Amino acid sequence: MTMTFSFKLLAQDTHSQARAGLIQTPHGEIPTPVFAPVGTQATVKTLTPADLAELGANLILSNTYHLYLRPGAELIAGFGGLHGFMQWPGPILTDSGGYQVFSLSGLRKIDEDGVTFRSHLDGSEHRFTPELSIAVQEQLGADIIMAFDECPPPNDYDYNIEALARTHRWAERCLVAQRRPDQALYGIVQGGIFADLRAKSAEFLAALEFPGYGIGGLSVGETKIQMHEMLEVIHPILPRDKPRYLMGVGSPEDLFEAVARGVDQFDCVLPTRIARNGAVFTESGRLNLRNAQFAQDKNPIEAGCHCYTCRTFSRGYLRHLIIAKEILGLRLTTLHNLHFILETMRRIRQTILDGSFAQYKDDFLAAYQPVPEANRQTLS
Amino acid sequence: MTMTFSFKLLAQDTHSQARAGLIQTPHGEIPTPVFAPVGTQATVKTLTPADLAELGANLILSNTYHLYLRPGAELIAGFGGLHGFMQWPGPILTDSGGYQVFSLSGLRKIDEDGVTFRSHLDGSEHRFTPELSIAVQEQLGADIIMAFDECPPPNDYDYNIEALARTHRWAERCLVAQRRPDQALYGIVQGGIFADLRAKSAEFLAALEFPGYGIGGLSVGETKIQMHEMLEVIHPILPRDKPRYLMGVGSPEDLFEAVARGVDQFDCVLPTRIARNGAVFTESGRLNLRNAQFAQDKNPIEAGCHCYTCRTFSRGYLRHLIIAKEILGLRLTTLHNLHFILETMRRIRQTILDGSFAQYKDDFLAAYQPVPEANRQTLS
Repeated sequence: MTMTFSFKLLAQDTHSQARAGLIQTPHGEIPTPVFAPVGTQATVKTLTPADLAELGANLILSNTYHLYLRPGAELIAGFGGLHGFMQWPGPILTDSGGYQVFSLSGLRKIDEDGVTFRSHLDGSEHRFTPELSIAVQEQLGADIIMAFDECPPPNDYDYNIEALARTHRWAERCLVAQRRPDQALYGIVQGGIFADLRAKSAEFLAALEFPGYGIGGLSVGETKIQMHEMLEVIHPILPRDKPRYLMGVGSPEDLFEAVARGVDQFDCVLPTRIARNGAVFTESGRLNLRNAQFAQDKNPIEAGCHCYTCRTFSRGYLRHLIIAKEILGLRLTTLHNLHFILETMRRIRQTILDGSFAQYKDDFLAAYQPVPEANRQTLS
Repeated sequence: MTMTFSFKLLAQDTHSQARAGLIQTPHGEIPTPVFAPVGTQATVKTLTPADLAELGANLILSNTYHLYLRPGAELIAGFGGLHGFMQWPGPILTDSGGYQVFSLSGLRKIDEDGVTFRSHLDGSEHRFTPELSIAVQEQLGADIIMAFDECPPPNDYDYNIEALARTHRWAERCLVAQRRPDQALYGIVQGGIFADLRAKSAEFLAALEFPGYGIGGLSVGETKIQMHEMLEVIHPILPRDKPRYLMGVGSPEDLFEAVARGVDQFDCVLPTRIARNGAVFTESGRLNLRNAQFAQDKNPIEAGCHCYTCRTFSRGYLRHLIIAKEILGLRLTTLHNLHFILETMRRIRQTILDGSFAQYKDDFLAAYQPVPEANRQTLS
């Protein structure tokens, strides 16, 4: 009695391409647009499954590359997959391992069949192929799994042509390799910052009739304008009745802009990673709680925020925890940042449903001061 | 309408000196015997006040030395003291700073008036006197505060004579220095491993009529037999109607033996510190979850344990978190170990009240394999 995967489009914004929908999975529903907190090593850092449920998380992501290396996919399969291992009862998504493997510059070698790489943990040699990535993801047992793709540098046209052809051949091999009928396998659109390649990729993958589509190779160094343009290019090409997942994107301003361009699904380490550096989201922008100005500040991170951190603690106490390197500080800032992003996503969805998304987007972006684009990577 | 401090003896075991009682403080009741989790830097590492309440903690300890240096007692006073700063609504105890300052060997110099020391954080020079320790503890605002004492090496008789005389003079100065009527100031019995000095100290301090008594300078390297002997020496001398607090003691076997010798109150970093090394308590002894034998173990740390960790997670998953250096691992083992100690204390108290303590002690100690005495310090 496995529930199969489905996606239903519930509303379409009239002023933008924003969509509200509902994904059905074997482990429950995912209202979209949705943001998935990242649990790289089968744990969203610092938080329990109970915390995630209280935050209203509807989907979490875990990383195939990391889990394959440690503790190993077979071991996790022995616990009934990721759901049994980490005791998160809701929907889970795993990436293919491709992004991490291709980030190991100097430690990996690519050929037509797959990628040979060395573990960042112990230098041991491993090899991923499309078939192995799918087999590992089937052992991990997530509800949504991803095709094994190549994530090339976004600005090199000639290399992107070559890499895209390979990514497409690998997508076909992933479809052939898939055995489990209870997991939804998404294809991944690549093509760097090149409109023609992105369009070609969307067309090719649309024809393969995946149940959903990842959009990869963005938010990797290109400008925001380029990212928006790529989303606009592929929007009319991808099938309307399938979810679109912009991988690795998660700053508040990016969520609004991508939703307005038809994206349904996101994940990003940003909220949790910057939290562990003491940076927290507010409606007017990021604060860094390490700053001395907060030492005696009795206010919560944000007045009116309903998260446990803001209901309970002052900025001054949080700053003390962070300066004193106390683990509780990391946990409380993580809780706040995820609450901020998930709550923003809930409001985005609600305003798409009630027709006020354009207004909410304008209001939010007018108040929110993003981190300057040049500093985005260093500050995160 | 400040509630004043009081202690009521409710039951006395007939087979031992074990006592059950109730301490009243301005921030609530403390059923005794009680174990206080340690929150050195105004946080019990990894846990929120909500977690502590769920664990049933009735008293927590915070360290004056650490808070004096960072973030500073005046800053904490500005938040309404520790209760307001860390948002723990229940009873709090602060130590005097003496133990930490005297542990800074090479960085401190003692004279009749006080101790000059260098900060372990930045090497800056500071000076504690009995008067300053009390003033700082009044700024921190705990319900129970401690006299500023010297904690000498336990085996040097001549030095202990000298140090004890100073500790007694300082105890008198602390009483004179105290301004806040809503805090209970405990005197501290010292005297190393010497029965005559311990007896003399208990007599001297009993005459000063403190509302409670710390027992310091134990569990610092002497044998268990010596510790037990010291407790037996002072037991008949200290006033029966005042709580006795064995400072820094907290292994399960020690709790039983000390309760049987009349101790009402404990604190120790042991349960939380070993948790962060992957060591967890069970009724048969400590397990170290780092061991490879637990990699595929689907059992909880202990079957039948009601803590969130054991209700939810397998040893295999916990081992993965610890090996992968995930913060959640530290949090979940901390939760279990504190639950184990607090639950053991609750049963100790209940069995004292219903007359079955001797039986419970025998049963517990028959099943529990303590860490070998020679390894205690290295393994903790």
